[in-house]
Amino acid sequence: MKLDPVVPPHVLTIAGSDSGGGAGIQADLKTASVFGCYGSSVITALTAQNTLGVQGVHVVPPEFVVEQLKSVFADDLVPTAVKLGMLAGPATISALGSYLSTLPSRPFLVLDPVMISTSGHELLAHSARDALTSDLLPLVDLATPNIPEAGVLLGSNPSPNCLADVVALGRELYPVLNGPALLLKGGHLPLTRSAVDEFIAKEDVPVVWLAPRPIAVIEDYRSTINLPPQSEDVVVDLLVDEDGMTLIVGPCVDTSSTHGTGCTLSAALASCYALEARQPNGTKADKSNGFKKATGRKRISHDAVRRAISYTQTAVATAPKMGCGNGPVNHGHNVAPRVIAAPTTHNPAPFTSHLIANAPDWDAYIKHPFVIALGNGTLPREAFVHYITQDYHYLRHYARAHAAGASRVEDMATIAALSDIALHIARESEMHIEFCESFGITRAALAALPESAAASAYARYVLDTANSGDVLDVLVAVLSCLIGYGEVGLWLKERVAAGEAVGDGNPYKRWMDDYAGADFIGAVRRGIATLEERVALEQPSAAKVARLTHIFAECTRLERAFWQMGLDLSW
Amino acid sequence: MKLDPVVPPHVLTIAGSDSGGGAGIQADLKTASVFGCYGSSVITALTAQNTLGVQGVHVVPPEFVVEQLKSVFADDLVPTAVKLGMLAGPATISALGSYLSTLPSRPFLVLDPVMISTSGHELLAHSARDALTSDLLPLVDLATPNIPEAGVLLGSNPSPNCLADVVALGRELYPVLNGPALLLKGGHLPLTRSAVDEFIAKEDVPVVWLAPRPIAVIEDYRSTINLPPQSEDVVVDLLVDEDGMTLIVGPCVDTSSTHGTGCTLSAALASCYALEARQPNGTKADKSNGFKKATGRKRISHDAVRRAISYTQTAVATAPKMGCGNGPVNHGHNVAPRVIAAPTTHNPAPFTSHLIANAPDWDAYIKHPFVIALGNGTLPREAFVHYITQDYHYLRHYARAHAAGASRVEDMATIAALSDIALHIARESEMHIEFCESFGITRAALAALPESAAASAYARYVLDTANSGDVLDVLVAVLSCLIGYGEVGLWLKERVAAGEAVGDGNPYKRWMDDYAGADFIGAVRRGIATLEERVALEQPSAAKVARLTHIFAECTRLERAFWQMGLDLSW
Repeated sequence: MKLDPVVPPHVLTIAGSDSGGGAGIQADLKTASVFGCYGSSVITALTAQNTLGVQGVHVVPPEFVVEQLKSVFADDLVPTAVKLGMLAGPATISALGSYLSTLPSRPFLVLDPVMISTSGHELLAHSARDALTSDLLPLVDLATPNIPEAGVLLGSNPSPNCLADVVALGRELYPVLNGPALLLKGGHLPLTRSAVDEFIAKEDVPVVWLAPRPIAVIEDYRSTINLPPQSEDVVVDLLVDEDGMTLIVGPCVDTSSTHGTGCTLSAALASCYALEARQPNGTKADKSNGFKKATGRKRISHDAVRRAISYTQTAVATAPKMGCGNGPVNHGHNVAPRVIAAPTTHNPAPFTSHLIANAPDWDAYIKHPFVIALGNGTLPREAFVHYITQDYHYLRHYARAHAAGASRVEDMATIAALSDIALHIARESEMHIEFCESFGITRAALAALPESAAASAYARYVLDTANSGDVLDVLVAVLSCLIGYGEVGLWLKERVAAGEAVGDGNPYKRWMDDYAGADFIGAVRRGIATLEERVALEQPSAAKVARLTHIFAECTRLERAFWQMGLDLSW
Repeated sequence: MKLDPVVPPHVLTIAGSDSGGGAGIQADLKTASVFGCYGSSVITALTAQNTLGVQGVHVVPPEFVVEQLKSVFADDLVPTAVKLGMLAGPATISALGSYLSTLPSRPFLVLDPVMISTSGHELLAHSARDALTSDLLPLVDLATPNIPEAGVLLGSNPSPNCLADVVALGRELYPVLNGPALLLKGGHLPLTRSAVDEFIAKEDVPVVWLAPRPIAVIEDYRSTINLPPQSEDVVVDLLVDEDGMTLIVGPCVDTSSTHGTGCTLSAALASCYALEARQPNGTKADKSNGFKKATGRKRISHDAVRRAISYTQTAVATAPKMGCGNGPVNHGHNVAPRVIAAPTTHNPAPFTSHLIANAPDWDAYIKHPFVIALGNGTLPREAFVHYITQDYHYLRHYARAHAAGASRVEDMATIAALSDIALHIARESEMHIEFCESFGITRAALAALPESAAASAYARYVLDTANSGDVLDVLVAVLSCLIGYGEVGLWLKERVAAGEAVGDGNPYKRWMDDYAGADFIGAVRRGIATLEERVALEQPSAAKVARLTHIFAECTRLERAFWQMGLDLSW
């Protein structure tokens, strides 16, 4: 299992600060984080802002903007993608262009030409257009204007009324940008699904549908919880790149929680690019995939664009009403609490550690008076015989629990692993039979003994749990016995070494040696490794971890009672 | 099910900006986000900074700091907790104190007296101490100095060598702070577990252990993957409040990734306070719990402190090596990708929608030629008879799948719900028997018919899946048949209404009426509601969602083949 944490892709935002936290670098950092990217930020301007509007702007001196940039790029963690947002003014734009054009290896640059805030505040003077066009656009890989911003970039005032108008606007703007791919955001022009259907019946433009068609049973379900039918309104974004045009059709969400939507989308685009640019093994992608050959510009895949738009749409659709005006979107919709951290060199077995730390009976189980007396050689013979005969019964069910697990997984590797353990247990039980024979109990007498309540309670609990859940439930149900006996074996070995317990001459030495021996401890190691790998893969939710924690705690409680049964000679 | 998204608690950070993204407001916003809080920020200073150090500082005019504050507090989403970090200088401190002291209802204030960065840069002049003491500390609820900062606050230069010295330092500083609770961070003085054991053997100070004692089997596991034994070194933080002193003992992590640790901890403390201050139903906590009666100050629970420290320790321990100097901590360790968004009024059935959108055979299943012919009344009688007799077999196994689910869950409500469905299916099968009788096939003949391959493949797949997984697997395995038949029923009803299919006079009218009828559609509604509720509760991981998506897609493929079997009269 890989224990060195993976370095996340680095996404830099160059933008304004929104004190209210919904837009600007705040939205960008939140977005990069939930995509699993590392976010840094170069601030071009501070705004005193909330959901009602922008109350004040403090422009950062352009030279300090560059100083921040230099600090970010001077470190050895160079950004894979950069999002450019609110750019304050022509001097800042020119300073940014000068700096970025000198970089030996330019990251992917996505430009959100933030000119007017959701609340209507002008964030970039029209006079800055020339600096943008001359100094920055030549470096940009993807530009994401909305319809009014497209107008500013074109020096016109377009008011498209239909999809054909939007496509014409995109067709006009793309060559003017002179290089970057264009994502023309259609949020200002709600359309209908049928308008899209009609348009594509005439024009051969590919469509990505993010607004699913109504499903009758879901429409019926909506009606039962007093929701109106799913709206036919859609928002259409237009992607124009060297491959041509693509329409991306999403649902039109009726909400006022749209503050920072544009920032969020461009940050999501930068994040999705950065994630794609990295191969699964953590190295950077081959340049032939990452770059447009024709123009030397980096290329973002349609799949990355789709994921970024889809993320942003859900962020809008799931936003709670916050603030007096246009509230922020819900950046965190795509993450859930992770209860168990990834295994690292500092803590290679976080889930096993968690289970032990949350099992109230663990210490009482491991250091039970039965165990101590066994280690001292003072355990009454009849207590040990009662215990070992019942443990023989337990082992049968314990083997069955592994077989039950093997019977219910789909992959052959896990089937083999669980079957192998069942086989080991069958062999381990031979030791019990030899023990019993050495105490004068024949194999037949052993098999005829009834199960005590403590043995039955524990064995049948493990078996039922292994039969009732998924593979994680199986692995946890059998864990307490495996690692607990290993812990007891190693603890007694340590006590013998320290002179606190008796090794040679102890009538139970063989038992102690077996559970501290290479064969059993090897099984313990494999058990821990298998469980940790599976948990790292599955990342169980809080609800699932709570259930698994309960299973393990219950098992240690039943293990403790099992020792006690031996001491008490109870049935 | 609650569909209105919950408004997250609001946490404000008042601090500096770290362009490198590891400390300052960037660390604070990342921390608040992963705790599920809404983060906003008032920036006191911009730094040009990276993991190597601070290359430049641009102090924000104090009046613009106040302007940002006013914007945040003017909105209707008032912060529940505020973290105060880098405060730039005496003028900013006084401006903050003036503003915060006039608030009609003061949020919880945690002060991280950031005076020196991890890289050694002085971030607050010693001269600012008086302003801090006179203008800000009287408002603060919790202060989190490290040992050097404690020295600055005391006007001394302490160099504690042992735990007794640290406790003495805390005892000296707490009354000087004159109000706030004190969390004295011990990161600058590594201690050992045995030093803590020895100290508490003599002094009666409660201890919270966040550094678990070594477990023999985990130590053994470490050795197998070439890791050294778990370190005995610990870091001890000292919490002093009106209840007295508490030691919080955490593991000492050997790493250079400590940039922003202090920022992260204080932001985590603010976040944990804000989460606790809210009752589970989303309303604010009763003030009697949230305030110290004696001093009028707000009180943070020891559990919140423990969670914040534990989060920060794991962020340090799981950080990948990033940057040339002291790299950032891993803020995102406590979240995992959430694949299915929460149900909202915009999308009340996100998981059902996801399953349908990702089942390639869904449309071919719903609009199968068998279904169309059935709706038109043109389906050959022998095709229908073949289908309905096989569907009788299917229903037996389908009922068993629900019973299998009921047999393997622990809560009585789910047992009852699944048993009720099994009973409904048994009743539904009576309709099939009546149909068959009307076609001249007796009950006995029906039971004697062998299962076709298509019926057996589908029925046994559903049954095995329901037997092999957890409750989500059960619910998804039975879903395709439930909602698919509902969809077919509603679609045919719509076609009849539109004159595209035949109602009266159609020999299959009863079948069509049954699956569009109130009884069956009611079951569909309950099925969707149950599944969506369970998914919202469980928040299945990406791995789990992939498995569930596969099960549903497989079921729709087998459903499609089932219709085809009817048309083909195949066995």
